[in-house]
Amino acid sequence: MEDTLFTANNIWMMVCTGLVFFMHLGFSFLEIGLTRQKNTINILFKNVFIICIGLLLYCLLGFNLMYPGSFIAGILPDYFIDLFGLSLPEDGLTTAYADGGYTYWTDFLFQGMFAATAATIVSGAVAERVKLTSFMVFTVIYVGLIYPIAGSWKWGGGFLDEWGFYDFAGSTIVHSVGGWAAVVAVYLLGPRIGKYKDGKINAIPGHNIPMATAGVLILWLGWFGFNGGSVLSADPATTSLTLVTTCLAAAAGGISAFVFSKIRYKNYDLTMFLNGILGGLVGITAGADLMTPTDAIIIGLIAGVVIVLGVSLVDHLKLDDPVGAVAVHLICGIWGTLAVGLFGSMAGFDQFLIQLAGVGIVGAFCVVSAFIILFIVKKTMGLRVSRDEEIEGLDLHEHGGMEAYADFRMNQH
Amino acid sequence: MEDTLFTANNIWMMVCTGLVFFMHLGFSFLEIGLTRQKNTINILFKNVFIICIGLLLYCLLGFNLMYPGSFIAGILPDYFIDLFGLSLPEDGLTTAYADGGYTYWTDFLFQGMFAATAATIVSGAVAERVKLTSFMVFTVIYVGLIYPIAGSWKWGGGFLDEWGFYDFAGSTIVHSVGGWAAVVAVYLLGPRIGKYKDGKINAIPGHNIPMATAGVLILWLGWFGFNGGSVLSADPATTSLTLVTTCLAAAAGGISAFVFSKIRYKNYDLTMFLNGILGGLVGITAGADLMTPTDAIIIGLIAGVVIVLGVSLVDHLKLDDPVGAVAVHLICGIWGTLAVGLFGSMAGFDQFLIQLAGVGIVGAFCVVSAFIILFIVKKTMGLRVSRDEEIEGLDLHEHGGMEAYADFRMNQH
Amino acid sequence: MEDTLFTANNIWMMVCTGLVFFMHLGFSFLEIGLTRQKNTINILFKNVFIICIGLLLYCLLGFNLMYPGSFIAGILPDYFIDLFGLSLPEDGLTTAYADGGYTYWTDFLFQGMFAATAATIVSGAVAERVKLTSFMVFTVIYVGLIYPIAGSWKWGGGFLDEWGFYDFAGSTIVHSVGGWAAVVAVYLLGPRIGKYKDGKINAIPGHNIPMATAGVLILWLGWFGFNGGSVLSADPATTSLTLVTTCLAAAAGGISAFVFSKIRYKNYDLTMFLNGILGGLVGITAGADLMTPTDAIIIGLIAGVVIVLGVSLVDHLKLDDPVGAVAVHLICGIWGTLAVGLFGSMAGFDQFLIQLAGVGIVGAFCVVSAFIILFIVKKTMGLRVSRDEEIEGLDLHEHGGMEAYADFRMNQH
Repeated sequence: MEDTLFTANNIWMMVCTGLVFFMHLGFSFLEIGLTRQKNTINILFKNVFIICIGLLLYCLLGFNLMYPGSFIAGILPDYFIDLFGLSLPEDGLTTAYADGGYTYWTDFLFQGMFAATAATIVSGAVAERVKLTSFMVFTVIYVGLIYPIAGSWKWGGGFLDEWGFYDFAGSTIVHSVGGWAAVVAVYLLGPRIGKYKDGKINAIPGHNIPMATAGVLILWLGWFGFNGGSVLSADPATTSLTLVTTCLAAAAGGISAFVFSKIRYKNYDLTMFLNGILGGLVGITAGADLMTPTDAIIIGLIAGVVIVLGVSLVDHLKLDDPVGAVAVHLICGIWGTLAVGLFGSMAGFDQFLIQLAGVGIVGAFCVVSAFIILFIVKKTMGLRVSRDEEIEGLDLHEHGGMEAYADFRMNQH
Repeated sequence: MEDTLFTANNIWMMVCTGLVFFMHLGFSFLEIGLTRQKNTINILFKNVFIICIGLLLYCLLGFNLMYPGSFIAGILPDYFIDLFGLSLPEDGLTTAYADGGYTYWTDFLFQGMFAATAATIVSGAVAERVKLTSFMVFTVIYVGLIYPIAGSWKWGGGFLDEWGFYDFAGSTIVHSVGGWAAVVAVYLLGPRIGKYKDGKINAIPGHNIPMATAGVLILWLGWFGFNGGSVLSADPATTSLTLVTTCLAAAAGGISAFVFSKIRYKNYDLTMFLNGILGGLVGITAGADLMTPTDAIIIGLIAGVVIVLGVSLVDHLKLDDPVGAVAVHLICGIWGTLAVGLFGSMAGFDQFLIQLAGVGIVGAFCVVSAFIILFIVKKTMGLRVSRDEEIEGLDLHEHGGMEAYADFRMNQH
Repeated sequence: MEDTLFTANNIWMMVCTGLVFFMHLGFSFLEIGLTRQKNTINILFKNVFIICIGLLLYCLLGFNLMYPGSFIAGILPDYFIDLFGLSLPEDGLTTAYADGGYTYWTDFLFQGMFAATAATIVSGAVAERVKLTSFMVFTVIYVGLIYPIAGSWKWGGGFLDEWGFYDFAGSTIVHSVGGWAAVVAVYLLGPRIGKYKDGKINAIPGHNIPMATAGVLILWLGWFGFNGGSVLSADPATTSLTLVTTCLAAAAGGISAFVFSKIRYKNYDLTMFLNGILGGLVGITAGADLMTPTDAIIIGLIAGVVIVLGVSLVDHLKLDDPVGAVAVHLICGIWGTLAVGLFGSMAGFDQFLIQLAGVGIVGAFCVVSAFIILFIVKKTMGLRVSRDEEIEGLDLHEHGGMEAYADFRMNQH
């Protein structure tokens, strides 16, 4: 019996792992869709790099840093294990883990897929002008060290967990961790050429909106695994409630963002609609297992408004964020984390303060860490491509002139 | 033991829910792929809107209308629950439902994903000239009221169910419900400018055939969940048989459509091939759990021929249906429903008559309902965009001039 | 209890079946992305054809050829069953199969999805100049007969299985079977016009790199099912280990391919990166359940280098393989098969020799078979389109002038 339930739980966790992996295609589609075609190869390269290096780093370092004592056996030769203090589980790979929820291997892979997400969020914000090698260096350090350290404070049973801070699937631990680094990176990088000119904000249109839309729908599907898998078992009541709250928040976020932006800007803005969906998803993530459907809809509706205001705020601060990553992942990540104190079964003033504290502490750590890493990179390797490279496109300079769409005629801009 | 089987069943139903959700990306890709680029943003907006509003409406109204007494608790405040007569399940969210098949939450979400499908089918048929706000009003009423009422007659245990009408996963209850509304809408809207000129039928080529193809493959994958989940448990024999019949009918439908159209039109027509696959899928949907593989192949082969003739028929009736929705969802939906009386374990003349009655009754209800809604919308808000808007593209007028492919050079037509 | 575990196992196998089906979208995206737009419809047609005919042929012939005695009942009328000697399982469709791992139906569908893969591999290599009808004839014979015969030697319990040859999920039995035919086909077809001119190798750039990238990520996701399902149950330890080794090999393959090609060619080559991922995936496939994570990373790192050298080798042999199918599926397939003798729990010199023998025997059989089929096709129907057709594009000639991207302005080349 035990074994059969264990098998069922593990199936669900493997499915969710696949879905979180698939989110990386969603992020890639969204990011290239909302930027210019001349940088497409570069963005794809970055995103594929993040998945690969993220998994490898999480295997070498991150998993152990984040969940002390639970590192997979056999990943490294023994002397390496001693060096890093990795412990070997006594009963090896067949052991049930997390009360029969899944195996060590599934745990590693599920968490590894999460790890890469943090850097992907940054990737969107810095697109179209960041130096590839510099971004790769940043990714290695941020995914390899900063993300698992922040994660261990909550999910590794650290002090935030002891305080009672709640973050079900990572509104703070994943999305804000990425979002804070995105703010810092955008600030240090400066805006794209032409974005803020003569005191005006110029929209730089994305080159492939169907792809961006596909990206958002893929991300929504991926969130079935991101939130559904964060139950850490296939417990029917919790997993299915989680999927319901996740989908209702997404739907409500989209509707409220498009209605609010229609009122504000007088047109049906598809990008806002899409960002509203993402905002609803990020917003429900911290408390997806605590909310009633009504709560989820309200959290989503608010997230949709927050997104529209957030995108506008970021733009007015002259933080050039091509894909709206800061508004979606940071601002809605904060909103979702605080919402745990306002709605659902844990709501209360004390909880709200703890949530606020968690947001602040993780935020401070991420901002300082990201600043130090990026500042050093900026002073040594440089953070930004040359003016010519930016104008002519990163694909031409960093990727041997490879074109994303060789047979199509393009407008230059 | 019970609990473990319940967990396993619920996992399968959640996976299927995700797959049916993913079908909305398939529908979006198919629809934009087969239309012109100047209306792409508009179509994507409609499709994303349908998913979001469909889920929210199904939560507020549809689920209760369709499955009386089984509405999810906690969706609405108490006074609302009284108003609509929603009942609170005594044992709340952990209750097994449908004999241990899945939870209330999973049921709601699975069925909610289905609900949005009906409107999506219409969306394809009315593409490139329907007024966005009018379509949104229609969607709200059709998904919120008409679909769940028709559905309740069979799946809610209504009179069609009592008569013995069989529709496993919705050849009639989903696909024809959408298809009938599509016919009415296309009739009331009229054809796109230039489609029928000087007595000739002019093909208006789609702008992105790779995307249309991807859409069909995604829909096929989604059908694993659409049909596989309609077993309402993970019963190994029935679920796996259902996947086999589904895939074989799809394959046979594709092959017969391309061969038949090759004979008729002397070229290898990819669009017909794709529509043949969809026709096979819709055709097997009513009886996917009743058929042997041989039955499934025959049903698919016939569906493929039906599609080629159906597309041609619709065109000769001057019903301008850019994506072939009427032939695929309505005509093959009828074929599939009738096939239950001709093939498989329930075949027989009496069953055939009951199937025919079900097709007729649901059809009459949908045609009348759709006509009333759309006629009122037409007389009040208008149903169709202006001539200028249609020629210049809906993206320019309704979406603030947003371009789907800003960096690409386009042909105007 | 038995029944519940059976249900859980069967769920996993159905999920994996869906994922392997989804790989066909990955292959399609990869293949059209890396070729020219003028042949896009043709390539999509081929790929969709392969899925459909592959499933039907596997139902009619392949399953029985590959797994003697286990053919599904009811597929064919009785006299046909007698003709082919198909046996009817006594307890019909509810029977547990493979020690409670899944049903007959699931088995058929999972294996049927594999079967089509072999022809898809060839499709990439012969793209842009193969005659559609000739390719269809080849596919029918190769998928219907050659693949299941080779497969039966190992997976049907044939002599390679008795010898102790190990091929977990098909580095040899699927990937090399496709790869060998690809080599033969490329050799008999000759290179595309303009590929090798005046002693120089001219790169012919692909027309949609985002789609190619999406293809690779979809293939990676599909490999969760390809390798994860090859466990033939949901056994938690083995399935989850398999997913870990699969993903780590993919990640390592990508990283090593891009680093090695950066050193060799001085730029960040996205195509090499992508092929490195695929090389890692193919490389781990033969022994995914035998390896530790460290082994998997090493196998992937080597596969990445092999890919870069392999692509270069194939090009210098003037074998024009537009998508790198030979390097990925054949060369890395061989590497993965041999790696079973070098790494992991079965490593040893004897095993290495058996692996080598398996590679050689299957290779000889496939080369000879493919040569005979293709040579006869070449002499009777012709294998290659006319020079005009190749220059103007296959879409124009074979598909009634249908354009893949009708609204876009294109460069001719």
